Amino acid sequence: METSTDSTSPVISSSRVEGTLVYNPQGDKLGSIEHLEIEKRSGQVRYAVLEFGGFLGMGTDRYPLPWDLLKYDTEKDGYVVPLQKAQLEQAPRYASDQPEAFTEDYGRRVYSYWDIPMW
Amino acid sequence: METSTDSTSPVISSSRVEGTLVYNPQGDKLGSIEHLEIEKRSGQVRYAVLEFGGFLGMGTDRYPLPWDLLKYDTEKDGYVVPLQKAQLEQAPRYASDQPEAFTEDYGRRVYSYWDIPMW
Repeated sequence: METSTDSTSPVISSSRVEGTLVYNPQGDKLGSIEHLEIEKRSGQVRYAVLEFGGFLGMGTDRYPLPWDLLKYDTEKDGYVVPLQKAQLEQAPRYASDQPEAFTEDYGRRVYSYWDIPMW
Repeated sequence: METSTDSTSPVISSSRVEGTLVYNPQGDKLGSIEHLEIEKRSGQVRYAVLEFGGFLGMGTDRYPLPWDLLKYDTEKDGYVVPLQKAQLEQAPRYASDQPEAFTEDYGRRVYSYWDIPMW
Protein backbone atom coordinates (compact mmCIF):
# COMPACT_ATOMS: atom_id res chain seq x y z
CA MET A 1 0.00 0.00 0.00
CA GLU A 2 1.30 3.41 -0.96
CA THR A 3 1.70 5.92 1.82
CA SER A 4 1.22 9.14 -0.11
CA THR A 5 -2.26 10.52 -0.59
CA ASP A 6 -2.56 12.81 -3.55
CA SER A 7 -6.12 14.03 -3.20
CA THR A 8 -5.90 16.03 -6.44
CA SER A 9 -5.18 13.03 -8.66
CA PRO A 10 -8.20 11.85 -10.67
CA VAL A 11 -7.14 8.23 -10.14
CA ILE A 12 -6.20 6.03 -7.20
CA SER A 13 -4.11 2.87 -7.12
CA SER A 14 -5.88 -0.42 -6.39
CA SER A 15 -3.05 -1.16 -3.96
CA ARG A 16 -3.94 2.00 -2.09
CA VAL A 17 -7.64 1.11 -1.86
CA GLU A 18 -6.95 -2.42 -0.63
CA GLY A 19 -6.43 -2.42 3.11
CA THR A 20 -7.93 1.03 3.64
CA LEU A 21 -10.04 1.24 6.77
CA VAL A 22 -13.77 1.90 6.58
CA TYR A 23 -15.70 3.91 9.19
CA ASN A 24 -19.30 4.87 9.72
CA PRO A 25 -20.19 8.59 10.14
CA GLN A 26 -19.86 8.25 13.94
CA GLY A 27 -16.24 7.19 13.52
CA ASP A 28 -16.74 3.51 14.40
CA LYS A 29 -14.41 1.24 12.48
CA LEU A 30 -16.42 -1.18 10.35
CA GLY A 31 -13.56 -3.07 8.72
CA SER A 32 -11.32 -2.58 5.72
CA ILE A 33 -11.50 -2.96 1.95
CA GLU A 34 -10.12 -6.40 1.15
CA HIS A 35 -10.21 -6.18 -2.62
CA LEU A 36 -12.21 -4.88 -5.57
CA GLU A 37 -14.36 -6.84 -7.99
CA ILE A 38 -14.00 -5.49 -11.51
CA GLU A 39 -16.25 -6.23 -14.48
CA LYS A 40 -14.00 -8.01 -16.96
CA ARG A 41 -15.58 -6.60 -20.09
CA SER A 42 -15.80 -2.92 -19.18
CA GLY A 43 -13.12 -2.51 -16.51
CA GLN A 44 -15.70 -0.99 -14.18
CA VAL A 45 -15.37 -1.56 -10.42
CA ARG A 46 -18.61 -3.29 -9.43
CA TYR A 47 -17.87 -3.90 -5.75
CA ALA A 48 -15.45 -2.73 -3.11
CA VAL A 49 -15.40 -5.69 -0.75
CA LEU A 50 -15.46 -4.76 2.93
CA GLU A 51 -13.99 -7.33 5.27
CA PHE A 52 -15.25 -7.41 8.78
CA GLY A 53 -14.18 -9.40 11.83
CA GLY A 54 -12.17 -12.62 11.91
CA PHE A 55 -8.50 -13.22 12.56
CA LEU A 56 -5.77 -13.72 9.93
CA GLY A 57 -8.44 -14.01 7.26
CA MET A 58 -10.15 -17.00 8.88
CA GLY A 59 -13.88 -17.00 9.40
CA THR A 60 -14.40 -13.46 8.13
CA ASP A 61 -17.43 -12.13 6.32
CA ARG A 62 -17.14 -10.01 3.21
CA TYR A 63 -19.63 -7.33 2.23
CA PRO A 64 -19.59 -6.21 -1.41
CA LEU A 65 -20.32 -2.46 -1.46
CA PRO A 66 -21.06 -0.28 -4.48
CA TRP A 67 -18.01 1.91 -5.23
CA ASP A 68 -20.20 5.03 -4.99
CA LEU A 69 -20.78 4.34 -1.29
CA LEU A 70 -17.13 5.04 -0.40
CA LYS A 71 -16.21 8.61 0.52
CA TYR A 72 -12.57 9.20 1.34
CA ASP A 73 -11.88 11.16 4.53
CA THR A 74 -8.40 12.69 4.61
CA GLU A 75 -8.41 13.18 8.39
CA LYS A 76 -9.23 9.53 9.07
CA ASP A 77 -7.13 8.37 6.10
CA GLY A 78 -10.00 5.99 5.47
CA TYR A 79 -13.39 5.68 3.85
CA VAL A 80 -16.51 6.90 5.57
CA VAL A 81 -19.67 5.15 4.49
CA PRO A 82 -23.20 6.25 5.43
CA LEU A 83 -24.16 3.01 7.12
CA GLN A 84 -24.56 1.65 10.60
CA LYS A 85 -23.34 -1.62 12.04
CA ALA A 86 -26.98 -2.76 12.29
CA GLN A 87 -27.36 -2.26 8.52
CA LEU A 88 -24.33 -4.42 7.90
CA GLU A 89 -25.94 -7.25 9.82
CA GLN A 90 -28.68 -7.52 7.19
CA ALA A 91 -26.49 -6.75 4.21
CA PRO A 92 -25.56 -9.17 1.41
CA ARG A 93 -22.40 -10.95 2.43
CA TYR A 94 -20.40 -14.11 1.84
CA ALA A 95 -17.85 -16.09 3.82
CA SER A 96 -14.28 -15.34 2.78
CA ASP A 97 -13.66 -19.01 1.99
CA GLN A 98 -16.78 -19.27 -0.20
CA PRO A 99 -16.52 -16.60 -2.89
CA GLU A 100 -19.65 -15.30 -4.56
CA ALA A 101 -20.41 -15.81 -8.23
CA PHE A 102 -21.33 -12.10 -8.59
CA THR A 103 -24.10 -12.69 -11.09
CA GLU A 104 -26.33 -9.88 -12.34
CA ASP A 105 -29.00 -11.02 -9.87
CA TYR A 106 -26.55 -10.74 -7.01
CA GLY A 107 -25.61 -7.26 -8.23
CA ARG A 108 -29.26 -6.21 -8.23
CA ARG A 109 -29.59 -7.45 -4.66
CA VAL A 110 -26.48 -5.59 -3.45
CA TYR A 111 -27.24 -2.30 -5.24
CA SER A 112 -30.86 -2.41 -4.19
CA TYR A 113 -29.90 -3.05 -0.55
CA TRP A 114 -27.58 -0.04 -0.52
CA ASP A 115 -30.01 2.06 -2.57
CA ILE A 116 -27.46 2.87 -5.25
CA PRO A 117 -28.56 2.96 -8.93
CA MET A 118 -27.28 -0.13 -10.70
CA TRP A 119 -25.12 0.03 -13.82
CA MET B 1 -3.57 -13.82 -5.47
CA GLU B 2 -6.44 -16.28 -5.80
CA THR B 3 -5.67 -19.56 -7.48
CA SER B 4 -9.07 -20.40 -8.94
CA THR B 5 -10.01 -19.10 -12.37
CA ASP B 6 -13.72 -18.92 -12.98
CA SER B 7 -13.83 -17.85 -16.57
CA THR B 8 -17.63 -17.61 -16.55
CA SER B 9 -17.83 -14.94 -13.85
CA PRO B 10 -18.55 -11.45 -15.16
CA VAL B 11 -16.15 -9.96 -12.62
CA ILE B 12 -12.57 -10.55 -11.53
CA SER B 13 -10.89 -9.72 -8.24
CA SER B 14 -8.29 -6.94 -8.23
CA SER B 15 -6.10 -9.30 -6.20
CA ARG B 16 -6.30 -11.81 -9.03
CA VAL B 17 -5.30 -9.25 -11.67
CA GLU B 18 -2.36 -7.96 -9.66
CA GLY B 19 0.67 -10.15 -10.23
CA THR B 20 -0.73 -11.81 -13.35
CA LEU B 21 1.90 -12.32 -16.03
CA VAL B 22 1.66 -10.54 -19.37
CA TYR B 23 2.81 -12.08 -22.65
CA ASN B 24 2.99 -10.94 -26.25
CA PRO B 25 1.29 -13.03 -28.97
CA GLN B 26 4.57 -14.93 -29.57
CA GLY B 27 4.53 -16.09 -25.95
CA ASP B 28 7.38 -13.86 -24.72
CA LYS B 29 6.91 -12.74 -21.16
CA LEU B 30 6.71 -8.96 -21.00
CA GLY B 31 6.21 -8.53 -17.26
CA SER B 32 3.29 -8.59 -14.86
CA ILE B 33 0.43 -6.33 -13.80
CA GLU B 34 1.62 -4.48 -10.72
CA HIS B 35 -1.59 -2.65 -9.88
CA LEU B 36 -4.57 -0.88 -11.39
CA GLU B 37 -5.27 2.85 -11.51
CA ILE B 38 -8.94 3.54 -10.94
CA GLU B 39 -10.77 6.80 -11.60
CA LYS B 40 -11.97 7.93 -8.19
CA ARG B 41 -15.23 9.49 -9.37
CA SER B 42 -16.53 6.76 -11.65
CA GLY B 43 -14.80 3.62 -10.37
CA GLN B 44 -13.54 2.91 -13.88
CA VAL B 45 -10.17 1.21 -14.35
CA ARG B 46 -8.11 3.68 -16.39
CA TYR B 47 -4.82 1.79 -16.46
CA ALA B 48 -3.52 -1.68 -15.79
CA VAL B 49 0.08 -0.97 -14.90
CA LEU B 50 2.57 -3.41 -16.40
CA GLU B 51 5.84 -3.74 -14.52
CA PHE B 52 8.85 -4.77 -16.45
CA GLY B 53 12.37 -5.70 -15.37
CA GLY B 54 14.11 -4.77 -12.12
CA PHE B 55 14.62 -6.76 -8.95
CA LEU B 56 12.53 -6.61 -5.77
CA GLY B 57 10.75 -3.55 -7.12
CA MET B 58 13.92 -1.48 -7.45
CA GLY B 59 14.67 0.35 -10.63
CA THR B 60 11.69 -1.01 -12.52
CA ASP B 61 9.70 0.76 -15.19
CA ARG B 62 5.93 0.81 -15.19
CA TYR B 63 3.79 0.98 -18.32
CA PRO B 64 0.18 2.07 -17.89
CA LEU B 65 -1.92 0.09 -20.36
CA PRO B 66 -5.57 0.60 -21.27
CA TRP B 67 -7.68 -2.16 -19.67
CA ASP B 68 -9.08 -3.08 -23.11
CA LEU B 69 -5.62 -4.17 -24.22
CA LEU B 70 -5.57 -7.14 -21.84
CA LYS B 71 -6.92 -10.46 -23.11
CA TYR B 72 -6.87 -13.32 -20.66
CA ASP B 73 -5.43 -16.59 -21.95
CA THR B 74 -6.53 -19.59 -19.90
CA GLU B 75 -3.71 -21.83 -21.19
CA LYS B 76 -1.02 -19.35 -20.18
CA ASP B 77 -2.96 -18.27 -17.08
CA GLY B 78 -1.88 -14.78 -18.04
CA TYR B 79 -2.76 -11.83 -20.23
CA VAL B 80 -1.78 -11.74 -23.86
CA VAL B 81 -1.44 -8.25 -25.29
CA PRO B 82 -0.98 -7.47 -28.98
CA LEU B 83 2.30 -5.68 -28.60
CA GLN B 84 5.97 -6.31 -29.17
CA LYS B 85 8.89 -5.61 -26.91
CA ALA B 86 10.03 -2.93 -29.37
CA GLN B 87 6.69 -1.12 -28.92
CA LEU B 88 7.18 -1.13 -25.18
CA GLU B 89 10.48 0.66 -25.61
CA GLN B 90 8.71 3.72 -27.00
CA ALA B 91 5.63 3.50 -24.77
CA PRO B 92 4.65 5.95 -22.03
CA ARG B 93 6.25 4.78 -18.81
CA TYR B 94 7.41 6.00 -15.44
CA ALA B 95 9.95 4.85 -12.87
CA SER B 96 8.37 2.85 -10.03
CA ASP B 97 9.74 5.30 -7.45
CA GLN B 98 8.35 8.33 -9.30
CA PRO B 99 4.60 7.81 -9.71
CA GLU B 100 2.75 9.59 -12.47
CA ALA B 101 0.10 12.22 -11.87
CA PHE B 102 -2.21 10.51 -14.40
CA THR B 103 -3.71 13.71 -15.71
CA GLU B 104 -6.16 13.78 -18.61
CA ASP B 105 -3.27 14.80 -20.88
CA TYR B 106 -1.28 11.78 -19.79
CA GLY B 107 -4.33 9.61 -20.46
CA ARG B 108 -4.62 11.01 -23.98
CA ARG B 109 -0.96 10.17 -24.59
CA VAL B 110 -1.29 6.60 -23.29
CA TYR B 111 -4.55 5.79 -25.08
CA SER B 112 -3.33 7.40 -28.30
CA TYR B 113 -0.07 5.42 -28.17
CA TRP B 114 -1.94 2.14 -27.78
CA ASP B 115 -4.60 3.18 -30.30
CA ILE B 116 -7.48 2.57 -27.89
CA PRO B 117 -10.47 4.97 -27.86
CA MET B 118 -10.28 7.16 -24.77
CA TRP B 119 -13.07 7.39 -22.25
